[in-house]
Amino acid sequence: MQLMKASWIEVEKYLQTSKAIVIPIGSVEQHGPNGLLGTDALCPEIIAHRAAEQADILVGPTFNVGCAQHHLGFAGTITLRPSTMIAAIQDWTTSLRRHGFERIYWLNGHGGNIPTINAAFSEVYAELSFANTPPVPGLQLKLQNWWQLAGVSELCNEIYPVGHGMHATASEVAVTYAGCPDAQKQVEMMPKIAPLGEISHAYAYRQSFPDGRIGSDPSQACVEDGQRIIEFAAKALIEEFSSFSAR
Amino acid sequence: MQLMKASWIEVEKYLQTSKAIVIPIGSVEQHGPNGLLGTDALCPEIIAHRAAEQADILVGPTFNVGCAQHHLGFAGTITLRPSTMIAAIQDWTTSLRRHGFERIYWLNGHGGNIPTINAAFSEVYAELSFANTPPVPGLQLKLQNWWQLAGVSELCNEIYPVGHGMHATASEVAVTYAGCPDAQKQVEMMPKIAPLGEISHAYAYRQSFPDGRIGSDPSQACVEDGQRIIEFAAKALIEEFSSFSAR
Amino acid sequence: MQLMKASWIEVEKYLQTSKAIVIPIGSVEQHGPNGLLGTDALCPEIIAHRAAEQADILVGPTFNVGCAQHHLGFAGTITLRPSTMIAAIQDWTTSLRRHGFERIYWLNGHGGNIPTINAAFSEVYAELSFANTPPVPGLQLKLQNWWQLAGVSELCNEIYPVGHGMHATASEVAVTYAGCPDAQKQVEMMPKIAPLGEISHAYAYRQSFPDGRIGSDPSQACVEDGQRIIEFAAKALIEEFSSFSAR
Amino acid sequence: MQLMKASWIEVEKYLQTSKAIVIPIGSVEQHGPNGLLGTDALCPEIIAHRAAEQADILVGPTFNVGCAQHHLGFAGTITLRPSTMIAAIQDWTTSLRRHGFERIYWLNGHGGNIPTINAAFSEVYAELSFANTPPVPGLQLKLQNWWQLAGVSELCNEIYPVGHGMHATASEVAVTYAGCPDAQKQVEMMPKIAPLGEISHAYAYRQSFPDGRIGSDPSQACVEDGQRIIEFAAKALIEEFSSFSAR
Amino acid sequence: MQLMKASWIEVEKYLQTSKAIVIPIGSVEQHGPNGLLGTDALCPEIIAHRAAEQADILVGPTFNVGCAQHHLGFAGTITLRPSTMIAAIQDWTTSLRRHGFERIYWLNGHGGNIPTINAAFSEVYAELSFANTPPVPGLQLKLQNWWQLAGVSELCNEIYPVGHGMHATASEVAVTYAGCPDAQKQVEMMPKIAPLGEISHAYAYRQSFPDGRIGSDPSQACVEDGQRIIEFAAKALIEEFSSFSAR
Amino acid sequence: MQLMKASWIEVEKYLQTSKAIVIPIGSVEQHGPNGLLGTDALCPEIIAHRAAEQADILVGPTFNVGCAQHHLGFAGTITLRPSTMIAAIQDWTTSLRRHGFERIYWLNGHGGNIPTINAAFSEVYAELSFANTPPVPGLQLKLQNWWQLAGVSELCNEIYPVGHGMHATASEVAVTYAGCPDAQKQVEMMPKIAPLGEISHAYAYRQSFPDGRIGSDPSQACVEDGQRIIEFAAKALIEEFSSFSAR
Repeated sequence: MQLMKASWIEVEKYLQTSKAIVIPIGSVEQHGPNGLLGTDALCPEIIAHRAAEQADILVGPTFNVGCAQHHLGFAGTITLRPSTMIAAIQDWTTSLRRHGFERIYWLNGHGGNIPTINAAFSEVYAELSFANTPPVPGLQLKLQNWWQLAGVSELCNEIYPVGHGMHATASEVAVTYAGCPDAQKQVEMMPKIAPLGEISHAYAYRQSFPDGRIGSDPSQACVEDGQRIIEFAAKALIEEFSSFSAR
Repeated sequence: MQLMKASWIEVEKYLQTSKAIVIPIGSVEQHGPNGLLGTDALCPEIIAHRAAEQADILVGPTFNVGCAQHHLGFAGTITLRPSTMIAAIQDWTTSLRRHGFERIYWLNGHGGNIPTINAAFSEVYAELSFANTPPVPGLQLKLQNWWQLAGVSELCNEIYPVGHGMHATASEVAVTYAGCPDAQKQVEMMPKIAPLGEISHAYAYRQSFPDGRIGSDPSQACVEDGQRIIEFAAKALIEEFSSFSAR
Repeated sequence: MQLMKASWIEVEKYLQTSKAIVIPIGSVEQHGPNGLLGTDALCPEIIAHRAAEQADILVGPTFNVGCAQHHLGFAGTITLRPSTMIAAIQDWTTSLRRHGFERIYWLNGHGGNIPTINAAFSEVYAELSFANTPPVPGLQLKLQNWWQLAGVSELCNEIYPVGHGMHATASEVAVTYAGCPDAQKQVEMMPKIAPLGEISHAYAYRQSFPDGRIGSDPSQACVEDGQRIIEFAAKALIEEFSSFSAR
Repeated sequence: MQLMKASWIEVEKYLQTSKAIVIPIGSVEQHGPNGLLGTDALCPEIIAHRAAEQADILVGPTFNVGCAQHHLGFAGTITLRPSTMIAAIQDWTTSLRRHGFERIYWLNGHGGNIPTINAAFSEVYAELSFANTPPVPGLQLKLQNWWQLAGVSELCNEIYPVGHGMHATASEVAVTYAGCPDAQKQVEMMPKIAPLGEISHAYAYRQSFPDGRIGSDPSQACVEDGQRIIEFAAKALIEEFSSFSAR
Repeated sequence: MQLMKASWIEVEKYLQTSKAIVIPIGSVEQHGPNGLLGTDALCPEIIAHRAAEQADILVGPTFNVGCAQHHLGFAGTITLRPSTMIAAIQDWTTSLRRHGFERIYWLNGHGGNIPTINAAFSEVYAELSFANTPPVPGLQLKLQNWWQLAGVSELCNEIYPVGHGMHATASEVAVTYAGCPDAQKQVEMMPKIAPLGEISHAYAYRQSFPDGRIGSDPSQACVEDGQRIIEFAAKALIEEFSSFSAR
Repeated sequence: MQLMKASWIEVEKYLQTSKAIVIPIGSVEQHGPNGLLGTDALCPEIIAHRAAEQADILVGPTFNVGCAQHHLGFAGTITLRPSTMIAAIQDWTTSLRRHGFERIYWLNGHGGNIPTINAAFSEVYAELSFANTPPVPGLQLKLQNWWQLAGVSELCNEIYPVGHGMHATASEVAVTYAGCPDAQKQVEMMPKIAPLGEISHAYAYRQSFPDGRIGSDPSQACVEDGQRIIEFAAKALIEEFSSFSAR
């Protein structure tokens, strides 16, 4: 069930049998010459929605803008400061806790979000620990990157043995093409495989990676590959979410 | 063009002819027994995307969670504190300014967001005014509620002369049904038309409005009405955005 | 009773019969060539103090500096950032709640404060809703602009059928002249009636409105008009505050 | 000249000959059985306004609510958190700097404000130091307590050799009585002279000082004493402000 | 006992007999040509550690970076903004309260910290007062400057009758030399005794005090003097802490 | 060179040949029955100071309190909220940048700090990216955990093939014993090797790990092992820092 398309009565009913929810969390940032600016939000959203078609999982709204300061050199990128993102994750969490949710599973689509999401978890826990309210709170927050769901990265590397890459990867572009076929773009990559390197801030990034990609050849991406990855990842998510819910 | 499905190269190209962008902004909050929790985000998103199919308008990601504390008595509602929302709108704006955007048009779907969006505009402007950087900055921020686009509320009242209402209105439910036909819900309204009253905080709200509606009978909503409203509103948006872009 | 001139013992006694208080809230900003920088703080203060002479109303200190970034192009204007103003309103409210006040009526003198005052109310309510403390909190916050007290704008338009205006209005200047007769200023207006237009930030404001006025001819203002408006508004305030207190 | 009663044109003219301004800063807090809640704001305001009648001094609006958490056990007290007060002082200062003010003289009426005002000065200076903008900024911020103006405390101790006290002092009550004769209150003090002790938080304060006074017998206060102190302090202020302006 | 070198089990045991702790708090800032950048953190740390060798006192970690914006003109100085320092002191205090500490004694080494530490105390107390939790909280926060421990400044002036000074004093340099003999530096002072003056921001400071000292000749400092001061101050600390613990 | 024991003149001279600095960053938190509360601050401090004895490296003050909310169930633990830690790291970084430092190497001793340190880096970079100041800023921030210096974890596992563990590890206790031999504690571990498990918040932590250790037998720790690790890690740090400085 997608929370955005559910009524409050349906969510109230869901809470009678489960205290767990999935929140897709992404970023709006350049993904190379043929990748979508929304890639990192779309990937976890597509996978979570697919999972929700096959199992009794509640999927919340997508937290779409994350930490992308290092991509600000490329048009269309939008970032939160980490301090803003922490405040927003606190507010989402507090709202959900008020309704009785106790297991919040953040399915992440952007490596650059990982530190701030974990810092936000610590901020939430610190407030609870400071308040020292007995009894022991039941709240558990979990971060999972979609490409680290069981078996997913192995599958991606199997499909793209060469040029899978680190940013604007062939697999993430494929997932978005499968989810939004009308957004496919034909662009010749030059060079075929983008360079590797280290990420720091927006100035350095554009110098090191002129078209935005890191180590990838995303021109390999196609709808069929994307569908295969989505199906696989959705199944892995269902399983992992089920055991998280039961903790 | 939807920014989320565009590449950075496409946005860079768009910026050569326009410095203007539409940002749909909404809320995740109860909308009565048959309305979707995502209604206030979906309505401006649906209308803006429809407009972008017919004109050269760039639509950014949807700012989906807003100020909904007064609905927290109903499961599934998620709110930001106004201070968090101000920080986030600052970050979105600063990111867009860095790329050269100078006209940011926030198409809003939630009355409860209006104060905080306007406060955020003042916060952005205050920072610029404090810095006192010459030359005169070109940034202009505009808030428009989709139901106040030229002629739209007249149309809604014409379609629903009775029971249009104030919250969980017949028209907004219709718009989401047209956008997401699979999310339609058949619920009998009791009473047929919900009571009217004043909004303050979550406790008082649920006491005054037990099923969440204010003054409405949204069981009248249907896909056809929604389509009519969307078409009308999208045209009005195109016109208004065009004159805003040219200011 | 004016809180500033009362002792704590007198306020403690007042609380035995009423939980309600009026807080005048204004701004320090240019008001054209013959208007006072303190106009927006003085108007609600003068009206509230007059009301307190005639009824058992407690009037708190005046929240004198508000959101005036758009007037920063004119010497003497002082503004808070909206985020600062929200924090301050929270602190005033929390202090008053601690003493037992449950109805806080903010009598506002500045249109530019409206969004931030309402955002502050949401921030206060959100904290309460997040904490979810039973039993239901009794706190109610109300914003009223003095010119929207019952019948006041009609009276102003009757007195000044031409050139009442939008900023540095004839009526607000008259109210301050009645309250501070020694501060009257004789200035010839050029043009007689100022232009109309839209407000955004400080740079644009001064370009559009070179002497600060919007649409007004405040040279019409005089002490007698001001007194008439004050008497009328004070009576309307007494009535409205009385029904708010009893809610 | 009082800024609140001046026009922007008058302030602009003042700035041609002086870059200095006085800001009265106080607190709203209990001042014992016969003292006014507004005492700490009224004293510096009364003295500064008197000085402005005799010399070319611009007096800004009164920053009326300060740091008074330790008085929250007494009805009517209102406090800012220090972090809020720092933000507000930053905003006032930044606004004034934008107009060209370079010497801001805060005439303080409350001992409990001293740390936070000084911390706010450091916050303002730190931002400037961090920005490292050449050339050297001219901004200078000064805190002066009205009772520490040259000769004032000597005068107060001469007038009240016994029972002048530490809080709700005879002299501050006298100053407010001179400024607001209609607010005088006849209350018998029990004990005649209040106990001495240390200040920490609101709970401890009310236990240690049941009627709010510390070490004082303010029933000695009268209008004539107040006038004498005001005249003396206003002259001292004129002199000190003049040398500060010229620095 | 030094908390940093204790186990949690040892601290838990300490809490069975005492709820009091000493926190050395300092600054990292220039201390003239022969003084250490860490002087203000080292002095209270050295004295507190010496006291803990002779009495059952728990000494927490040193809060080493404080408010030093005015020294930013000199290499190596590090400052917090006051708002950051307030937040950090809140967090330290809340952490310690959670374990049961009720008397926190901040032994300070830097005059420039005094306002912000006191503001932080008010912030902590304000949160408690706002929450209004019965029963009365036992928390007491105390600030003491090491040079104001009973008899210490008299001793310092006795040892250095000439050129003790205000910043980079002979005594503080001596204390650090006694604590870190390998860090002694031989530098000829020019002029022998540094000028006096007023402190504001970093730009003005370096102009007024070119080598960083104010009024001092720290070339007089030696290990033996430092040891004498340390022994004396440690004894005074033991006594004062003991009576604070027992309050 | 240790900054805390250097004069500003020495640091100014260092800056003529290097723009790089090491900042040890740790935490104050329980480390099991025989580990020191200061372990995570002491380890990087000891290693960095040892490196500075052998190479021309400037070591700043130790950022000693970090993110330790999950250990708050154990006496003596002190934590910052992540938002506070981000603000503090910003302030340290801005101070250092002002002096000309462009390579800041944070040598970390606590796994729980990693997200927040990285989030702080993004916050710093985001501010720079938002400001968009040309020319390209040279600032580079690097996080390295001491146990991930080249070869260090291999050495630790070689020394402690069994019971090295995840928290309160044998190696970190050994490093602190070597650095502070007088703080060694003889405690029998029960069980010999602590359980493994997942970390979330303070309540869950103490339930899962009753004496604080995770997976370790730190009773194996001794001074000699610690010295060996320190020597090895210091050499690795020298090399890594040298190449970071030269980037």
